[in-house]
Amino acid sequence: MLSSPPPSSAYEAYLSKRENLIREERSLRRDQRPQIRHVSAIEAKADEIVRRIRGEEAKVLWGNHGAGSADLLFPGMGFLTAKETILKSKIFRIIETMPKGALLHAHLDAIVDHRRLLRFALTVGAPHMHIRVGKALNHSNLHTLIPEFRAFAVDDDPSPEASVLSVTEESGYVPMTWVPLHVARENFRLGGFEDGEAVRDKRFKQHGRSDGEELFDAWVLAALQIHPSEAYETMNTVDKIWEKFRSCFGVTRGLFGYEPVYREYLREVFEGCVKDGISYVELRVNFYSRTMVRAGGIDDFSHREWMLAFREVLADFKKDLEKKGRGGDFAGARVIYTTLRDISVEDMDWYLDDCLQLKKEFPEEIIGFDMVGQEDQGEPLLFFAEQLVRFQERVAQEGLYLPFIFHAGETLGDGDSTDTNVIDAIVLGTKRIGHGFSIAKHPFLMKMCREKDILIEVCPVSNEILRLTSSMPMHPLPAMLNSGVPVALCCDDPAIFGNLGISFDFYQVLVASEISGLTTLGTMAMDSILFSELPNNQKDRALREWEKRWAAFVEEIVRGTN
Amino acid sequence: MLSSPPPSSAYEAYLSKRENLIREERSLRRDQRPQIRHVSAIEAKADEIVRRIRGEEAKVLWGNHGAGSADLLFPGMGFLTAKETILKSKIFRIIETMPKGALLHAHLDAIVDHRRLLRFALTVGAPHMHIRVGKALNHSNLHTLIPEFRAFAVDDDPSPEASVLSVTEESGYVPMTWVPLHVARENFRLGGFEDGEAVRDKRFKQHGRSDGEELFDAWVLAALQIHPSEAYETMNTVDKIWEKFRSCFGVTRGLFGYEPVYREYLREVFEGCVKDGISYVELRVNFYSRTMVRAGGIDDFSHREWMLAFREVLADFKKDLEKKGRGGDFAGARVIYTTLRDISVEDMDWYLDDCLQLKKEFPEEIIGFDMVGQEDQGEPLLFFAEQLVRFQERVAQEGLYLPFIFHAGETLGDGDSTDTNVIDAIVLGTKRIGHGFSIAKHPFLMKMCREKDILIEVCPVSNEILRLTSSMPMHPLPAMLNSGVPVALCCDDPAIFGNLGISFDFYQVLVASEISGLTTLGTMAMDSILFSELPNNQKDRALREWEKRWAAFVEEIVRGTN
Repeated sequence: MLSSPPPSSAYEAYLSKRENLIREERSLRRDQRPQIRHVSAIEAKADEIVRRIRGEEAKVLWGNHGAGSADLLFPGMGFLTAKETILKSKIFRIIETMPKGALLHAHLDAIVDHRRLLRFALTVGAPHMHIRVGKALNHSNLHTLIPEFRAFAVDDDPSPEASVLSVTEESGYVPMTWVPLHVARENFRLGGFEDGEAVRDKRFKQHGRSDGEELFDAWVLAALQIHPSEAYETMNTVDKIWEKFRSCFGVTRGLFGYEPVYREYLREVFEGCVKDGISYVELRVNFYSRTMVRAGGIDDFSHREWMLAFREVLADFKKDLEKKGRGGDFAGARVIYTTLRDISVEDMDWYLDDCLQLKKEFPEEIIGFDMVGQEDQGEPLLFFAEQLVRFQERVAQEGLYLPFIFHAGETLGDGDSTDTNVIDAIVLGTKRIGHGFSIAKHPFLMKMCREKDILIEVCPVSNEILRLTSSMPMHPLPAMLNSGVPVALCCDDPAIFGNLGISFDFYQVLVASEISGLTTLGTMAMDSILFSELPNNQKDRALREWEKRWAAFVEEIVRGTN
Repeated sequence: MLSSPPPSSAYEAYLSKRENLIREERSLRRDQRPQIRHVSAIEAKADEIVRRIRGEEAKVLWGNHGAGSADLLFPGMGFLTAKETILKSKIFRIIETMPKGALLHAHLDAIVDHRRLLRFALTVGAPHMHIRVGKALNHSNLHTLIPEFRAFAVDDDPSPEASVLSVTEESGYVPMTWVPLHVARENFRLGGFEDGEAVRDKRFKQHGRSDGEELFDAWVLAALQIHPSEAYETMNTVDKIWEKFRSCFGVTRGLFGYEPVYREYLREVFEGCVKDGISYVELRVNFYSRTMVRAGGIDDFSHREWMLAFREVLADFKKDLEKKGRGGDFAGARVIYTTLRDISVEDMDWYLDDCLQLKKEFPEEIIGFDMVGQEDQGEPLLFFAEQLVRFQERVAQEGLYLPFIFHAGETLGDGDSTDTNVIDAIVLGTKRIGHGFSIAKHPFLMKMCREKDILIEVCPVSNEILRLTSSMPMHPLPAMLNSGVPVALCCDDPAIFGNLGISFDFYQVLVASEISGLTTLGTMAMDSILFSELPNNQKDRALREWEKRWAAFVEEIVRGTN
């Protein structure tokens, strides 16, 4: 048996080689490069503190509790099941107060908590908002039927034949007829329950009663969100979960697409941003519907009027902030014009033209073009490439600046048309890439993004719930960070997923890694502003504002006053 | 609205730029480089045919059957649930006949179908093989108790006090006493069942009867394998599934570690390779136990004698192949000496020394050193680095060649000690990397592996069942292939996972990608031989033999005679 000699020079050489390799590898990361962002001594201390708490919580909050425990807890586990534990986390509390920079990837019609959306529909939406269902509801079909909403003019009773003011079988509802929303909600009686019998579907809260507004709300909300049993059990594939996901947007449309609700909703978006420490937002707005219903009930509120309303609500909101002396908290909001990707070439021409017209009238607000919808099922970028290239020529001819900011690679495909969208997006000159999930398969393309300063809008919680990955530890984000690609964290569709704001996404990323720390999050927050489409002077101001708040934030952590 | 002008030169420029980018990106892949391997016109045709069948089967075999179907089928889905569908696949039939090159990553004591292992224990293992259990079995505790096996000398009745010849409560079994295996199996009566009542645990086959050899076998096999309900439900995390995984090895040990069984087992390993079109194998052999039980029952069969038996069984097998004129089918087998990684530095010294002694006596057979056990729970390479460096110096001083062939990165960790094993393995000069799962997070390190010709032994089915990934489409293999890293596909522990041979691993990889095709598999098969530790002359011969068989294989596909 070997004795123990003193460390040999071969061993010392080994340690030295090892250290150099680690340093060289990590030197590509943006959070390790002083020329990208200077990390103060206080921030380094705060980073240590956060790592320590993270390590403790990994055992205390996420450790499996007791031998043979049935718990399958771990940091970064499936968000829908993890959420209630995350809310108990000290790390999460810290992240909530973090100035998180800009939100660069979020779909307007899926940002606000659906309970608020329903409330708007019942208040400013009344009495115009109506509801209908495919069948009269009873307690056994409740979980299979989803509502549809639409606003009508008051003197235009859409369903004069309706002799009931409820959507339930017990009240004699005639299927597919429109009932005023608030009335349907007040009169929501299913009957047929024994006293105390609860609705069986686990997506609804347990109700001792068989009726009432609480059950109505639960039923509506279940149609607007994804439940853990759907993502993790019954619909546990990309295609299946997208059926539910698409359905949520369908249900939202009638509620969201009514001007008074839309205005309240917009304001709520801005308030939600400020509350979560988001200082600027670029919203994906889906212009596929050519109109929404205007206040009073006529369905002819045009895209131009959507944008005028957007401008008004934003201006009011900023004015209110200024009054409170908090003008520096919010650098504003802008719009990325999007339409669906499963449309014809002719229809795409209409939307490209519409986008250009809106850009001319709203040059400050409209800052990009994109396509949305399930990437695997819709057309790939190549399908529209000819028009997109012509569009770019036209934009340039008109002396405008309107970049593409494409979704690309939100897929598990390898070498199929969706995976190849990443290549097309880059060749089409996209400023940023939405999701870019599959780019992690392509180190060559990640290197291009690093060199061309193309930021990836990573949506961790979305990717997990939509079944591209099963948990954060499996998410390919580390490959992007280790390639030096600029990354911003985004929530995508928090109303449907429950990850309101971007604190949850920041949290999931932080706890699933031991390289990533507070500095990593800070770098991504800074990059989200740096790689935004803010005009240069506003961008500088937003960056300086963020740096001020960040310095105060890390100081509070070190002082323990956080 | 825009009219439709003829394609502009901007669009043509786009298409050209796009094509160049795709070509440039793919030029890194080994399966796209003619200097790595020439692809004949016949192979290109065969590749097309296979892609077509793959596309058809994606719809017919793996498509969700009918709207609202509860099926969650897709190509590359969880193997344990997919297996029975895979067996119906024409693609799988084709892969079975494919000459797949070398198997470079498989643990000897987890290669052979456990039903065969049990059969050996009952035949050549009788009457020495004994069984014991922690409690007397009945129909309600059956699913919670696992057996332990050991061989004893016949005249050394290990449990003279045992007055029963069964391990069941009904027969009055005294817990922890040893019962001869074949006798325990014949007398396996649980009692307490109504006629027709089945054992409830879904891991056991349904039995109309409450007793008998069939139920005994089912109970033993459940302790030796991972059941889908374990991987995908009750133990669906890396740590939890490793508890079951480790337990399987513990149960195997007593059966495998008896010389007559060991000899039959070895032969079965070689036969299984040839049957699955594997022409050469480098086996991870775990030398942690310092002896096994020799024929007759004394526990002093040394490592040296393990290797002598290995040499004998292999020589006999090759001679039998030669007699059938099939000598060219099998280039032989070699051994990678492994021990556990959760041991002390002093113990590691013993094993390193033992490894060196075995190398001196069996220079042809012993071709590498490695550590095994759950990487996350054991010590990282850094912990043993000093000794490993000294070992390398000693090997060199003795004029020997004995490379490291380390497991590294079999983890979801990011920047933790297990993830960093990849760096240490490379700095320690590893010839190949076992699993290397987390290297996909490290494009910089993948580039090093490409430049240094370090092959990654990828074990797709293993990675999925052990919960590093949920399905093949999520597996990071494409990142490695797109980085030009040499890859070989391996089964790891087929006895426990059910992926006997390497056809299942080849299959899962092929169906989860649209870039990868027959040529990709062929390149990996060739690389498995190229990057093996065969001496040069034998390697050349093995490569030529493989190329001959491959040419015949692709021709059969094109002729439709496959």
